[in-house]
Amino acid sequence: MTTQPPRTLHLNAFLMNAGHHDAAWRHPSSRPERITDLSYFQELARTAERGKLDSIFFADGVALWGKARHNALGGFEPLTLLSAIAAVTEHIGLIATVSTTFNEPFNLARKFASLDHLSGGRAGWNIVTSGTVDEARNFNRDEHLEHHVRYERAREFLEVALKLWDSWEDDAIVLDRAAGVYADTDKLHPAAHRGAHFQVAGPLNVPRSPQGYPLLVQAGSSEDGKEFAAQYAEAVFTAQQTLADGQAFYKDLKSRLARYGRSEEDLLVLPGIAPLIGSTEAEAKELERELTELQVPAYGLAQLSGMLGVDLTGLPLDGPLPELPDERDINGNKSRFTLVAELGRREGLTLRELIARLGAGRGHRVFAGTPEQVADQLQEWFTQGAADGFNIMAPVLPTGLSDFVDHVVPVLQRRGLFRTEYTGRTLRDHYGLPRPVNRHVTA
Amino acid sequence: MTTQPPRTLHLNAFLMNAGHHDAAWRHPSSRPERITDLSYFQELARTAERGKLDSIFFADGVALWGKARHNALGGFEPLTLLSAIAAVTEHIGLIATVSTTFNEPFNLARKFASLDHLSGGRAGWNIVTSGTVDEARNFNRDEHLEHHVRYERAREFLEVALKLWDSWEDDAIVLDRAAGVYADTDKLHPAAHRGAHFQVAGPLNVPRSPQGYPLLVQAGSSEDGKEFAAQYAEAVFTAQQTLADGQAFYKDLKSRLARYGRSEEDLLVLPGIAPLIGSTEAEAKELERELTELQVPAYGLAQLSGMLGVDLTGLPLDGPLPELPDERDINGNKSRFTLVAELGRREGLTLRELIARLGAGRGHRVFAGTPEQVADQLQEWFTQGAADGFNIMAPVLPTGLSDFVDHVVPVLQRRGLFRTEYTGRTLRDHYGLPRPVNRHVTA
Repeated sequence: MTTQPPRTLHLNAFLMNAGHHDAAWRHPSSRPERITDLSYFQELARTAERGKLDSIFFADGVALWGKARHNALGGFEPLTLLSAIAAVTEHIGLIATVSTTFNEPFNLARKFASLDHLSGGRAGWNIVTSGTVDEARNFNRDEHLEHHVRYERAREFLEVALKLWDSWEDDAIVLDRAAGVYADTDKLHPAAHRGAHFQVAGPLNVPRSPQGYPLLVQAGSSEDGKEFAAQYAEAVFTAQQTLADGQAFYKDLKSRLARYGRSEEDLLVLPGIAPLIGSTEAEAKELERELTELQVPAYGLAQLSGMLGVDLTGLPLDGPLPELPDERDINGNKSRFTLVAELGRREGLTLRELIARLGAGRGHRVFAGTPEQVADQLQEWFTQGAADGFNIMAPVLPTGLSDFVDHVVPVLQRRGLFRTEYTGRTLRDHYGLPRPVNRHVTA
Repeated sequence: MTTQPPRTLHLNAFLMNAGHHDAAWRHPSSRPERITDLSYFQELARTAERGKLDSIFFADGVALWGKARHNALGGFEPLTLLSAIAAVTEHIGLIATVSTTFNEPFNLARKFASLDHLSGGRAGWNIVTSGTVDEARNFNRDEHLEHHVRYERAREFLEVALKLWDSWEDDAIVLDRAAGVYADTDKLHPAAHRGAHFQVAGPLNVPRSPQGYPLLVQAGSSEDGKEFAAQYAEAVFTAQQTLADGQAFYKDLKSRLARYGRSEEDLLVLPGIAPLIGSTEAEAKELERELTELQVPAYGLAQLSGMLGVDLTGLPLDGPLPELPDERDINGNKSRFTLVAELGRREGLTLRELIARLGAGRGHRVFAGTPEQVADQLQEWFTQGAADGFNIMAPVLPTGLSDFVDHVVPVLQRRGLFRTEYTGRTLRDHYGLPRPVNRHVTA
């Protein structure tokens, strides 16, 4: 009889410019002058690796975000950046956000296969459909595609990518110098895809990679998003404000897996948390207050307008939210709209208060406390059915990440909740997920 | 009165899998088992940097090339690979081939801006239009675009990319923490492009990079290709078999610059050479013979068929070339067709002989000799008006590159023809080209 190892949690470091808080770049502990400097991100990745974290992750969009006047922006394209980080790290997983709406599956499948090869099996893809008109206008369109059509395209995009990643069997390369045979072409397969959005012949021009294909990550929590995640995703990033909301989302998403022939262990749910860490609770709250005071109201209002799909310019900051549209009529990030609208209504917040509450996490949960208190929060969500791990969003970088690694991780390790050493080499090893079998291989 | 420094030549290392010779992977000095391994390419890049070369370069196509049965293929996507190489090198330029036919300008401009930032100004773009139907079939098409239309699209693509690269002035980032102003938005500019192929709003979401934009490289030698190069390119890779052909091409291309308001120094001509290096001439010839004997005739015939646009399968290897179409009717690589057809006709080669002649360089010049003899060849072309430098195509890797760096480079240095140390940091510094001025800046 074998004993099951104790369940441990997973930690992803979500890295962003000078930090997740929208005023991070103004805070003296941040380094905004370094965000166009590769060494800054390499150091952050090494810090995460020092903490034995599962992975690092970059969000992305394909338009200038927030107009750059009041927010610090490096803007490196994530696959390019993660390739340069791969070269100076050994274990940490590397998750890039890339849009299915503004790319071609052959190019993208190839880039991820390349990153997976050159990182020794550490690539992950956060699949997004791009929800803003600013992005559409950089890609030959006046308006962006309707929400449902974007997900249709995403589904077909992923099917093509999966075919391409399976187009070389793992043992296709025979490398027989004497016979002059490099690859056994019986083990290469066309994609031969002809669908509504794509026609792709294949095979891919990169051999199958260490993980077979990148870890598939998804972060949309709308109905379309959850269904897409249930079908394909192996990890889900989500914004949940309360334990009850987190539990409901977790249960909902896991219950959808069976209809795609998948089990609950096949998908990890990783809610975001922006932890403000202090050696005392008062110190943590003081950091939070400092950051709130550094917020630029015009920027916060513009961001809030974007999330709610309503122009709030000119409304009194100390007044309430105006009448809002229904989620049905939102064609951007539907789930974020609903979360923010409910947060405002539930707590009766003024615009100024809502901007302050959204400053650190843009809708993700924010928690200020000591390392023990932060660990308590993670443990609670992890043991109470709301999380398999967490998306750690340091409000200020690099300090917020090094504080988490140096002070919160050891608490989690002492409690037996987190690894003390890496036990595998690939990103799926870290997440405890199996390597996908090639569809062309029969047992 | 200032004295002009002596004119020195430029060297680019064109890296390919196990080496440029189509049988390189079967030769005992190659390492085909390492071509899906990042460390292999990092070592090659460091070898080139040890030799103080200007740059390394990867060719590319977006379809499986040669079907992989008889040719060793790693297939990493060049921008991904070069980003990982950037992280472990300091000086060497990094030139990636990317197609204008199967990409979107916003994505590509951003990737090159990212690579240029994270390499400290070492990015170069070899602009190709993709000439094969196999590539078109991976991108929703049954047939590929007509040659002239591909160049029209390439021109507009480049215009959009140039607008995006200029969309941030160099001093747009003010980083005023006290005032809460990150960027001076008066120094950000939309692209506002509306053309026949693209509509792109801009601005780019990456600040202007160290070089302003990547070095622009071009390698097509058709009429369309030469005209495109004369208008935009800063370096041209070209295949020329004889000194006379090299001189004619050099003169032709340089003479086209004036009509675009450019001078002869604005564009460097770099013919390819595949040097087989031996400590004696006999040893070099012996290496050439060994490689020829390792060629797989079926593979050579398929490659030749592709270059000539004629199916040669089943024709006797010891017979002559059949009747060939006119260059006008070739819709792939027109200049390579003409070069190969003329080589076969001029020397009355059989198919087998032509395959042997094309084995090491696919139409580029092949030369077997001692380091002194190789240096003599380079010096002759450089001083006789056929080259500003060379595209060095080691027939077998890694040995062909380390032999060149360790034995040919020192001869060139002793003759005062090549640098002994890097004097600048960026790729344009190495090539002696100025950093482009942003169009929005007035003196």
